[in-house]
Amino acid sequence: MKRRCLSNAIVAIFFCAISVKCKKNSVQKNRVSIFFSQENSSDATPVVLEEILKASQYPISEIKFEPGTYHFYPDKALEKFVHISNHNDVLVRTAMPISGMKNLTIDGQGAKFVFHGVMIPFLMENSSNITVKNLSIDWAVPFHSEALVVASDEKNRTFDIKISEEYPYEIRNGNLVFVKEYYEHSLGQTILYDPKRKAIAFDTESYTDLTYISRKAVQYNSEKIKYKYKTDPRDYPQNRIGVEQRLRAEQLEPGLVRIFNHGKKMPPVGYILTSKGEQSANRLAPAFRLVDIHGFKGENLIVHHAGGMGFIAENSSNILLDDFNVIPSSNRMVSTTADATHFVGCSGVVELRNCTFKNQLDDAMNVHGSYQEIVDVLDDYRLGVRMGHFQQKGFSIGKEGDKIGLVRLSDSFFPYDRRTIKKTQSINGRYHIISFTEKLPKNLAVGDLIENLNGYPEVLVENCTISNNRARGLLISNPVKTVVDNNYFSTEMEAILVPVESSHWFESGNAANLTIKNNVFKDCQHSGFDRGVIRFVTDDDNDNIAFKNIQITGNTFDQFDNLILEISNTDGLSFTGNTITSSNNFKKLHPKNPAIKLKSSKNITFQGNTYKGDAQRIVEAKGDMSEIQFN
Amino acid sequence: MKRRCLSNAIVAIFFCAISVKCKKNSVQKNRVSIFFSQENSSDATPVVLEEILKASQYPISEIKFEPGTYHFYPDKALEKFVHISNHNDVLVRTAMPISGMKNLTIDGQGAKFVFHGVMIPFLMENSSNITVKNLSIDWAVPFHSEALVVASDEKNRTFDIKISEEYPYEIRNGNLVFVKEYYEHSLGQTILYDPKRKAIAFDTESYTDLTYISRKAVQYNSEKIKYKYKTDPRDYPQNRIGVEQRLRAEQLEPGLVRIFNHGKKMPPVGYILTSKGEQSANRLAPAFRLVDIHGFKGENLIVHHAGGMGFIAENSSNILLDDFNVIPSSNRMVSTTADATHFVGCSGVVELRNCTFKNQLDDAMNVHGSYQEIVDVLDDYRLGVRMGHFQQKGFSIGKEGDKIGLVRLSDSFFPYDRRTIKKTQSINGRYHIISFTEKLPKNLAVGDLIENLNGYPEVLVENCTISNNRARGLLISNPVKTVVDNNYFSTEMEAILVPVESSHWFESGNAANLTIKNNVFKDCQHSGFDRGVIRFVTDDDNDNIAFKNIQITGNTFDQFDNLILEISNTDGLSFTGNTITSSNNFKKLHPKNPAIKLKSSKNITFQGNTYKGDAQRIVEAKGDMSEIQFN
Repeated sequence: MKRRCLSNAIVAIFFCAISVKCKKNSVQKNRVSIFFSQENSSDATPVVLEEILKASQYPISEIKFEPGTYHFYPDKALEKFVHISNHNDVLVRTAMPISGMKNLTIDGQGAKFVFHGVMIPFLMENSSNITVKNLSIDWAVPFHSEALVVASDEKNRTFDIKISEEYPYEIRNGNLVFVKEYYEHSLGQTILYDPKRKAIAFDTESYTDLTYISRKAVQYNSEKIKYKYKTDPRDYPQNRIGVEQRLRAEQLEPGLVRIFNHGKKMPPVGYILTSKGEQSANRLAPAFRLVDIHGFKGENLIVHHAGGMGFIAENSSNILLDDFNVIPSSNRMVSTTADATHFVGCSGVVELRNCTFKNQLDDAMNVHGSYQEIVDVLDDYRLGVRMGHFQQKGFSIGKEGDKIGLVRLSDSFFPYDRRTIKKTQSINGRYHIISFTEKLPKNLAVGDLIENLNGYPEVLVENCTISNNRARGLLISNPVKTVVDNNYFSTEMEAILVPVESSHWFESGNAANLTIKNNVFKDCQHSGFDRGVIRFVTDDDNDNIAFKNIQITGNTFDQFDNLILEISNTDGLSFTGNTITSSNNFKKLHPKNPAIKLKSSKNITFQGNTYKGDAQRIVEAKGDMSEIQFN
Repeated sequence: MKRRCLSNAIVAIFFCAISVKCKKNSVQKNRVSIFFSQENSSDATPVVLEEILKASQYPISEIKFEPGTYHFYPDKALEKFVHISNHNDVLVRTAMPISGMKNLTIDGQGAKFVFHGVMIPFLMENSSNITVKNLSIDWAVPFHSEALVVASDEKNRTFDIKISEEYPYEIRNGNLVFVKEYYEHSLGQTILYDPKRKAIAFDTESYTDLTYISRKAVQYNSEKIKYKYKTDPRDYPQNRIGVEQRLRAEQLEPGLVRIFNHGKKMPPVGYILTSKGEQSANRLAPAFRLVDIHGFKGENLIVHHAGGMGFIAENSSNILLDDFNVIPSSNRMVSTTADATHFVGCSGVVELRNCTFKNQLDDAMNVHGSYQEIVDVLDDYRLGVRMGHFQQKGFSIGKEGDKIGLVRLSDSFFPYDRRTIKKTQSINGRYHIISFTEKLPKNLAVGDLIENLNGYPEVLVENCTISNNRARGLLISNPVKTVVDNNYFSTEMEAILVPVESSHWFESGNAANLTIKNNVFKDCQHSGFDRGVIRFVTDDDNDNIAFKNIQITGNTFDQFDNLILEISNTDGLSFTGNTITSSNNFKKLHPKNPAIKLKSSKNITFQGNTYKGDAQRIVEAKGDMSEIQFN
């Protein structure tokens, strides 16, 4: 009714005074419900933005969209410079800046949102009880590109790709560049898709990444430049030192390009080569970005694409994604160009239920904290800390009252002491000063790490389908509690990776109280790596315990290859009631592997499992570990 | 005395209570005077920054430095994303964020500040009555590079440059890249210096810019990408479309590089080729950056270098630079890589006195406002406006109460109507929404421009030496009042350029009430352009009046070439008591020129001048203008 009577207006505002609810509740008198229709607006951005920016004066409880397609352009969108964890620092634009709000529901009622350029559809911070539901997100022109391999010449070391008109390109000094609306990218990160399976190609690691760069540039003193402080070899300008482009492209005819100088096997004809440009520049427009959001529900949502992650939440709590789906649109192989969902320093409960995560170019879910390196002991109460990875710049370790663990990973994967945050001060993206309420311990040393012990959640992943994507299913660094129940996994790397990672991304957290039950694992780890379907691993090569209280029970592993489970540094893992079968869907890549590898672990038990696989040996224990019986 | 007793401390804080002044004045009780010594600190940044950040709690009236050399590194400096007019948008670092302060004096007492990487030495905003004096600013590693031309082969179209160890480089895919601490740049913008004169080489336009790019990239639909709104061909990603690198570099031996494919004359042996990289990326670290500073004195300062301008002030008022000097350090040819000083939207009084501006890579002074294009008439009171040039993104047209001129340059160089700002709202760097207190006129049209009529100052330039730099001396777009008195000019382009410019930088302002008296102009305009030493010009080719009430009197022009004065679109110019002589220092580049060119002007008078130059004809009038007698 409301919709009909106001459909001629671009924006119709209902003051709650006219609604039944508001009449009954004077507290809500000032609240505004906003309804957007798609008429008369070929660019939804200025219309939506104008209303949302009024929220500081007139709090909004509900935003509804008339079903239909809404195009959002960046030209008149709000601009903000943001650090985003696991993304680039970016001057981004948005039509929906959700900041300082509470109890807001955005209901798309089936609307399709189509974005153009470097925009973040939902840029949310410092808010509570936010619900977004019933809408889909896509980009008119994606941040990645796809091309069909049409010729492959091992002898002359070239291959040819056919590029459709959807993916305009240029060749500049032999460099193939895909040109987009408001953006462009190189052949920097590539992977093969098998169009028949609409999934990552079997054994893609033999072919991709394309060897985009070489380290053969002529150098004259450039390698000798001295820095006063530690630099990050992945960040500009260090990432350019000594590097040249190795691949050379030549147009054979319009839309047909020959690639020279690839250093791996030539990609097979019929596969789709997907490309998203260089890692240092290709994570800049996630679909949902949350910082300090306490209480979030995402329901009945489809993220068809994003130039980065589908959902990235930092220092937030109590997040439920129900029927939140990452699925490519139309004929595209790729959905989001990075993880489907990612949670850094989150607390309370994080739940994924009834979700489908398909064809994204990184993990379906990654849950972790952040290790920050102590570089200065400023006084008895203050530390200067450094972010290790350039795509974690600006991440705040926590807030007043949070418990910080002091960690020396060479000694233990668990904190040697704890202190309480009084204040954090962001000096710059790399360097923060943290003040504590208690005196710092005497044995603290520069080079130790800090992690936020309150920055881990209870995690539930239930009834989800994770398949056809690059990288892992779940990446869990969570010492609190994690339940992975009744999901389907078919991933090209590990279905579930449980790491302590401190050398690349500095994603903190060991794991404890992890239950993996009643899931189906189907032909995971098919891209070529010699790794388990479920894998526990640490960067630090020692026998210390990192992982505790792990239950893996009632799962089905229907795998083409032998290795199912890789365990290290674990105390207490029971593997019970699982069924392992051989799918024979692909050729075995590592036929000599056992089904289970054990290392530096104790209290590992196997009970009531069924093994119908092909491994010559089921369990292989390394180092000091004695043989363990598989039952 | 103070200094001696506290010299062991890195930072000594004097509470004013112990000083005589403060004892007498209880208002100043809370004020803090800070003294920095250079001992025990190899990086001044964290020490200085920590004290300055306390200013919001403990206002500072004075900061003093013990004489000596202070190194400022970016690693622990405050980070801020800033739009800077006529610079790049930049995530910059600073040790001296002056924000929300008043009545502050920073006295270097002769200290030398040496910066490293992308830092802004003085990042100042929203403050009043600030003085900075008695210090010098330099960078350990400059943002530009210099190389000696050692061979020049017109036949084979190559030239060779010798690059010293001061300037590390790499050659990547034939592209010469100069590699710096925290930075690097290409051969994007280049100019020749004559080391004997330590000035821009005579006739450099025949040799430079090097033809760095060509527009010959292979294109497949990239040129057909449609944008909903206007784009800027100079901004990313439009500036990449169809472009490849044209020059190719080859190392003959370490430190000796041959350059191929240059399209102009080969640079002569013995000249210094200076390079600062591409325009789109090379203006990022000015020495002084002021926004909304009301009352500023800079006294006895030397800016040896900056990766951008020496001094850029936006929307500020009452600025005095006295003995403010831009001079290269050691054996460098180049001082700052852009203008020495630059004023946008400034008001009150702007004075340059007793300054030396030498060897910078752009104008000595540029004074203008900003034209912003009306792209949306949102309602009776609100306009959406667009910034035209990507390096003016984020510039705020004015504040509440400022008078805005509505301009249609095809009709007139003067506003057709005026309105008063109620509010400005920055949606993004390109797009602002301006609300007015009065209704907008009916005849206003999309495509018209706005300028801030309160954003022009009274300007005095007195007793300054401007020489050896690239580009102009003074660039004056100021309708209020400008006096240029008793200065020395020796510039490679115009000594004084008076434009109405609306097609490239969108630097607003016609000129009126301009007095140019008692100056010496020596061999200006020697780089090759066919332009006057003093030149009035508009982008719009019509006969409308742009410039009014101009006095040029008592000056000496000692020039190698003929053309002295180029006048167009002017009503009221008197040229009296000037002496024009022939220096014979260089070969004439344009020997057929008259001394004075007139166009589309009226009320032009010549009286009491002495002409001893070589021009066959002194005055040449074009179009409808009748002949005017030179006296």
